[in-house]
Amino acid sequence: MIRGSELAATGGSSTRGPASLNDRETWRRLEPPSQRALLGRLYEGIRAASVELCQPLVAEDFCLQAVKETSPPKWHLAHTTWFFETFLLQPFLPDYKDFHPAFQHLFNSYYNAVGEQFARPMRGLLTRPTIDEVMAYRASVDQSINQLIDTCDQENLPAVSKLLELGCNHEEQHQELLLTDLKYSFSLNPIKPVYQSAPSDVANDDAGSTVRSSQWWEYQGGLCEVGHTGSGFSFDNEHPRHKVYLEPYRLSPWLVTNGEFLAFIEAGGYDRPEFWLSDGFAEATAQGWKHPLYWRLVNGRWYEFTLSGERPVNMNEPVTHVSFYEADAYARFCGKRLPTEAEWELAAETVPVEGNLRESGRLHPAPADGVNPLFGDTWEWTASSYSPYPGYEPEAGAVGEYNGKFMINQMVLRGGSCVTPAGHIRASYRNFFYPPDRWQFTGIRLAEGIRQ
Amino acid sequence: MIRGSELAATGGSSTRGPASLNDRETWRRLEPPSQRALLGRLYEGIRAASVELCQPLVAEDFCLQAVKETSPPKWHLAHTTWFFETFLLQPFLPDYKDFHPAFQHLFNSYYNAVGEQFARPMRGLLTRPTIDEVMAYRASVDQSINQLIDTCDQENLPAVSKLLELGCNHEEQHQELLLTDLKYSFSLNPIKPVYQSAPSDVANDDAGSTVRSSQWWEYQGGLCEVGHTGSGFSFDNEHPRHKVYLEPYRLSPWLVTNGEFLAFIEAGGYDRPEFWLSDGFAEATAQGWKHPLYWRLVNGRWYEFTLSGERPVNMNEPVTHVSFYEADAYARFCGKRLPTEAEWELAAETVPVEGNLRESGRLHPAPADGVNPLFGDTWEWTASSYSPYPGYEPEAGAVGEYNGKFMINQMVLRGGSCVTPAGHIRASYRNFFYPPDRWQFTGIRLAEGIRQ
Amino acid sequence: MIRGSELAATGGSSTRGPASLNDRETWRRLEPPSQRALLGRLYEGIRAASVELCQPLVAEDFCLQAVKETSPPKWHLAHTTWFFETFLLQPFLPDYKDFHPAFQHLFNSYYNAVGEQFARPMRGLLTRPTIDEVMAYRASVDQSINQLIDTCDQENLPAVSKLLELGCNHEEQHQELLLTDLKYSFSLNPIKPVYQSAPSDVANDDAGSTVRSSQWWEYQGGLCEVGHTGSGFSFDNEHPRHKVYLEPYRLSPWLVTNGEFLAFIEAGGYDRPEFWLSDGFAEATAQGWKHPLYWRLVNGRWYEFTLSGERPVNMNEPVTHVSFYEADAYARFCGKRLPTEAEWELAAETVPVEGNLRESGRLHPAPADGVNPLFGDTWEWTASSYSPYPGYEPEAGAVGEYNGKFMINQMVLRGGSCVTPAGHIRASYRNFFYPPDRWQFTGIRLAEGIRQ
Amino acid sequence: MIRGSELAATGGSSTRGPASLNDRETWRRLEPPSQRALLGRLYEGIRAASVELCQPLVAEDFCLQAVKETSPPKWHLAHTTWFFETFLLQPFLPDYKDFHPAFQHLFNSYYNAVGEQFARPMRGLLTRPTIDEVMAYRASVDQSINQLIDTCDQENLPAVSKLLELGCNHEEQHQELLLTDLKYSFSLNPIKPVYQSAPSDVANDDAGSTVRSSQWWEYQGGLCEVGHTGSGFSFDNEHPRHKVYLEPYRLSPWLVTNGEFLAFIEAGGYDRPEFWLSDGFAEATAQGWKHPLYWRLVNGRWYEFTLSGERPVNMNEPVTHVSFYEADAYARFCGKRLPTEAEWELAAETVPVEGNLRESGRLHPAPADGVNPLFGDTWEWTASSYSPYPGYEPEAGAVGEYNGKFMINQMVLRGGSCVTPAGHIRASYRNFFYPPDRWQFTGIRLAEGIRQ
Repeated sequence: MIRGSELAATGGSSTRGPASLNDRETWRRLEPPSQRALLGRLYEGIRAASVELCQPLVAEDFCLQAVKETSPPKWHLAHTTWFFETFLLQPFLPDYKDFHPAFQHLFNSYYNAVGEQFARPMRGLLTRPTIDEVMAYRASVDQSINQLIDTCDQENLPAVSKLLELGCNHEEQHQELLLTDLKYSFSLNPIKPVYQSAPSDVANDDAGSTVRSSQWWEYQGGLCEVGHTGSGFSFDNEHPRHKVYLEPYRLSPWLVTNGEFLAFIEAGGYDRPEFWLSDGFAEATAQGWKHPLYWRLVNGRWYEFTLSGERPVNMNEPVTHVSFYEADAYARFCGKRLPTEAEWELAAETVPVEGNLRESGRLHPAPADGVNPLFGDTWEWTASSYSPYPGYEPEAGAVGEYNGKFMINQMVLRGGSCVTPAGHIRASYRNFFYPPDRWQFTGIRLAEGIRQ
Repeated sequence: MIRGSELAATGGSSTRGPASLNDRETWRRLEPPSQRALLGRLYEGIRAASVELCQPLVAEDFCLQAVKETSPPKWHLAHTTWFFETFLLQPFLPDYKDFHPAFQHLFNSYYNAVGEQFARPMRGLLTRPTIDEVMAYRASVDQSINQLIDTCDQENLPAVSKLLELGCNHEEQHQELLLTDLKYSFSLNPIKPVYQSAPSDVANDDAGSTVRSSQWWEYQGGLCEVGHTGSGFSFDNEHPRHKVYLEPYRLSPWLVTNGEFLAFIEAGGYDRPEFWLSDGFAEATAQGWKHPLYWRLVNGRWYEFTLSGERPVNMNEPVTHVSFYEADAYARFCGKRLPTEAEWELAAETVPVEGNLRESGRLHPAPADGVNPLFGDTWEWTASSYSPYPGYEPEAGAVGEYNGKFMINQMVLRGGSCVTPAGHIRASYRNFFYPPDRWQFTGIRLAEGIRQ
Repeated sequence: MIRGSELAATGGSSTRGPASLNDRETWRRLEPPSQRALLGRLYEGIRAASVELCQPLVAEDFCLQAVKETSPPKWHLAHTTWFFETFLLQPFLPDYKDFHPAFQHLFNSYYNAVGEQFARPMRGLLTRPTIDEVMAYRASVDQSINQLIDTCDQENLPAVSKLLELGCNHEEQHQELLLTDLKYSFSLNPIKPVYQSAPSDVANDDAGSTVRSSQWWEYQGGLCEVGHTGSGFSFDNEHPRHKVYLEPYRLSPWLVTNGEFLAFIEAGGYDRPEFWLSDGFAEATAQGWKHPLYWRLVNGRWYEFTLSGERPVNMNEPVTHVSFYEADAYARFCGKRLPTEAEWELAAETVPVEGNLRESGRLHPAPADGVNPLFGDTWEWTASSYSPYPGYEPEAGAVGEYNGKFMINQMVLRGGSCVTPAGHIRASYRNFFYPPDRWQFTGIRLAEGIRQ
Repeated sequence: MIRGSELAATGGSSTRGPASLNDRETWRRLEPPSQRALLGRLYEGIRAASVELCQPLVAEDFCLQAVKETSPPKWHLAHTTWFFETFLLQPFLPDYKDFHPAFQHLFNSYYNAVGEQFARPMRGLLTRPTIDEVMAYRASVDQSINQLIDTCDQENLPAVSKLLELGCNHEEQHQELLLTDLKYSFSLNPIKPVYQSAPSDVANDDAGSTVRSSQWWEYQGGLCEVGHTGSGFSFDNEHPRHKVYLEPYRLSPWLVTNGEFLAFIEAGGYDRPEFWLSDGFAEATAQGWKHPLYWRLVNGRWYEFTLSGERPVNMNEPVTHVSFYEADAYARFCGKRLPTEAEWELAAETVPVEGNLRESGRLHPAPADGVNPLFGDTWEWTASSYSPYPGYEPEAGAVGEYNGKFMINQMVLRGGSCVTPAGHIRASYRNFFYPPDRWQFTGIRLAEGIRQ
């Protein structure tokens, strides 16, 4: 099967979920009341989902922060609210009064243009405001946002709707982080708290080895285009759509499984510098990495911590919680490599956005049967550093700090994971983390060039 | 006035509060039922006090831990319970079953003989067990302790009563730490949480300078005895009572006030190495110390954080939250020195255990009127390093890890503070912290030798 | 002026200096004795240059190492020798005996396939072997290499000549590092040692502002090729030559001068996060950067440390010793950007390799008169992360650790500097350092896209 | 045998070596020319000894500094010279001009009253001034000091002689440090440099176990006096002589041997917290200590690095290069304790200052035959923290920074070592290092109380 670059121009499509107005052009052609109603439903759905994710938590959990990279649930709930207050209510709602004078400082993440931020590693110290007060903050902002949607001048509506959509996508990102951060913090508690009970199909069935599709997907490359197209929502970092030249390549149809990765471990992969980037080997050595994050060997059997507690590793599931360094070393161990982000995007543009995403309720990668779609299960590390596309321009104003200033030292990941909302992900979506980061649901899809 | 060493031999006396059996000899002469009843009342009072101290807290506060030196309230509540479970129920109550298999690990502080400990800096991550579960743990252990008191063999009663008394004194220490740890963690929250409302007499009255007693207290020294005597409760580090030779000396009748310490600040004291020990100046420089912990200069006025929130510094109150290094530098700035622990104890042996202790409810030093008793307000840094007394022997068994293994690198403090229970402190009591520690209620009493 | 991609295929040309066999094809067609003679001359010249660079040093200087990133001169002299011993003498010279059993360990830099390495930060502790012993090591290896050149089988000669050429290029890299490392270490000595006296033309003439060429160089881009071509020497990281698609762009004809950079400083550039990448601003803040490395403000006048000691900053010279973060922030301050490495290479392929390189003897950037050639003065930071070219393959064997394993977290620099030997640099040459690195002669050339 | 406190009042005596004027009273009664001649001889001898110790060094060694606690030989040579220049030539020699304007800054160790100091960890970076320049500095200052001795007013002579004597004792301390620092730095070099060849009697004879004197030395204690007495030289920290009360005690007549300490190692001593102070166990764990510094297990045999290179551990020699923590843990392992400094001094006051000191030329502890004198071989850790004696006053002026400001966090050591000049040590001499320090020649003598 050859999927060529000729198809690329047709762009991404597929159903979009609740975080966007689907097709901005269609939205624009609606009557104003319908426009506002659609905005209200979008907002309401996203906001409710955040609260729903917190149902299993007790009050103490809301302040849980294990390391500076993670944030407590309470902070996620408040920060996303601060985003709407700061970028929508303050500029657009007449006579709006801040809910609390200190929140501007406490819940600003990194927007220097908005003001100084409370120290990131200390977010867990904010036992006050209490979770009840934060919920009251949410309710108050929700009410004001609804008021804004209902009452803002029609001429402001395009700007308001654009920022509202941005705020909703922002909140969806924090929903994902809320789960990954919580998983990390829970994992350090020796009593291994359970966020949700395990889905019934998670039998600890690692006996049967699955039959692999022997045929990798092939792409002819050539002069292609990548970057966002169409009128759906996108972040500034997906722009502008631009030309790239790709040599012919193949992608593996499946994500590397726990069983495959175990072979790397058992071959001494963590101790053999020949497979590793120099910085990667230094990091693995300094941190004592000998297996993916959350794995633990107990009496000769591998266990892993999940959002459903600790359980035996299912060898047929995609491996997850590996750093870029481990993904890259594993690929070299196999004589393969990671795909570039352009290679990945070209492949993804023609397939539906379907897979094991958050809506499946599993919140964990699912056993592979030889094919994993490009979306869902785990974010896929690419070989591409996170850089601006040619001609990239950040958004104007403080929201311009959203993406551009992070374009250094990080690697691009693609495809979303089992905790990404289905409506949030798309072919051109660029996620980014540092090479040693492991606490996201990150995994490995192999690639190789086609020699001619 | 001369208070001489001749009086030393009469030993400490005074009323003892709820943490001890007052006079062990008297207790021994009681009928067994009365003995057991007294033990029960002692235990009940101490345990209730811990819970009472937590009344102002919300659930999130129970996991609050800002730095590794401090522990969250939940941990204090559980660890003190673990102490009774480990040293009384396990060895003495037949068929006792541990409340939870993981607690032995989670709530052991530093008893290596008992097993490995959960990492100290991560105590705040224990959102589970919840505070409700910890309260259930307390209730369960309380019930079993009462059962033990009622039913243990008479031959075991001496050992049980000794360990119970130790556990009660241990819990009182953690009550003090619960307050000082909470104060520290709250202080880092920009919204400055209030633990209790301020006492009505805390007028911000720093206008009137108090009249100082011009006469320092004088002591002739000579060959004296220090160390615990009598049959009341004591820790092993107060033993054995032994002879020391002291030159004649004077003690200041008052604790250094905020106003006096401000003169040191305003004289550039923090930037003048001639007043400081070399390690102290290096620490002050590295940490950027320019004033006591919790002070903050706002628009030219000094404020300090208290358990009643932030308020203007009262210049007539004893200065507190200064490290040994600052206390020592201040003394040198004045041409004086800190007292040795023997000098302090000799003076304290003849005065009643009275002062601004926890029972006053103030939980903050009180304005001085020229005399501060040796007990209460602030712990007083001494010039003595924390070392074993000649012939010191730790308690046998795991409880021997209580004091002896910390006898290095720390300095002795004496006298108790405004958060020390009155029944807990005595003339021979040796507290100890590291020279840079500041988060306890620590203060300064000056001394000098009498040249002859 | 348009310089188009059409010309790219002609490849780099120009005279090559002593570090390569110029044109391998030509060399291959020589008679064997001439081949060997040419190898001998190449080797002799490079080796002599290393020793010559050390003429100004005293014995103590040979062990000088200020930070782990730098190495002492003695170590550079020994490590380059170790390279020839390890990769040429051991495998190819019959019955070769190592000069010293410990040197394999002491002077291996990072070749894991060769064995464990002596800790990098401790290279300065190797006062023994003495510099005399290291010179004897060099002499001994030189003699054996000459013997190898003269006597090796003709069938081995291609392999030997290839490794010898690699070793010579490797030694030239260390010659550059020897100077930049020494400059860094000397700069920390308050008596400001002088490596060589200043060239007579370095008048402290910063009065006259130079006239800038107003016209930037323009390139039409399109589908181009980059990567090494031709039969001259190259490193594996310059391969394979491959297609890239470039939008039209302009390059500044001059390097940013000290005077221009001063405007950034005086505009508060170091304190304005809007110009910086997030990681860059964090680094600048943590390190307290307020100006390029080696600058110092004395009584209102800027001085900088050079290999000729400290002297006033010449405002017409290209700014140097700035990190990638500073270069990137400066570009954003100007509303411009840094060029990508492909943009740079395309421009460089058609110009001669000429400029202020090491042979000028200046060892410092020269005042600009409005045009700086692409080669010399300072390495030019590009916007490209250091990644493998599509289809990249490392060299086989231990020398494969030369480049590939460093392809993460670093940025590409192009063009060579005032301490790079002229024969060492070329259009396709890829240098790489970490974004915060400042101790190399690094500078800034601006670029911008051409909107169409 | 009982050696009682009655004898204490007779004070220390014995022959004093070149670092002091022996008996100041006697010196005062000499004719002025003889006084000056004696000063000159004292100075000349000390200064020559420093240079002589450097004979085995090559130029690179003079800048060798492995960690901030140690200093390079060049720095010791220059700093001791700076001491004479600063405290004698500047104040007392008319029209004296500093040898070099930067040396005041470069070679000041920690005298804040004299000015800012060059960063201690960077002393090894001072390749310039060269060793030749430092030797010229020494010669110049020597000439000026001789001129001062010859020409200063008779009225200044007492002050000059006092400071000169202090400077000579100061230089002797740096002679000892020069050797211990060099040993540490050399030990990190895998080729194990040799400072001097081994004495012929250092046979690797660890086969024969020595016969221990079964009888420990006993002392009755009581009310005693300690502190310096007599008219010989002393440091301010040995004053004032004062009363202490001691319980009866015993001292071991021998220093703990390598063989005895090996029993601790083999009993798992380093992994058993019950023997250790809490801070000590944490330090040992963090540092990975499993044996004394400089020991290394090679093929089942213990080797140690010495100033004569690496050689098998002689099990009959006193163990050395152990920290206070290890000494204290070893004592607890034996059921004994370390002596207090008063106990040690009382015992030492009545014995001659004789032992394996620097003059033996061995520069290493000597095998014990069951008795080690109190002086020489290794400094003996005491159980006493380094605190001011009652009534202690530092010297006036900048030289007052010599001792007093270090009286925190350190432990007292007594008796001198195999690299201490014989004339430098005495019964009342107080040395001090931090509990984890290991690079001095430190060892262990056990003590115990006598129960009555």
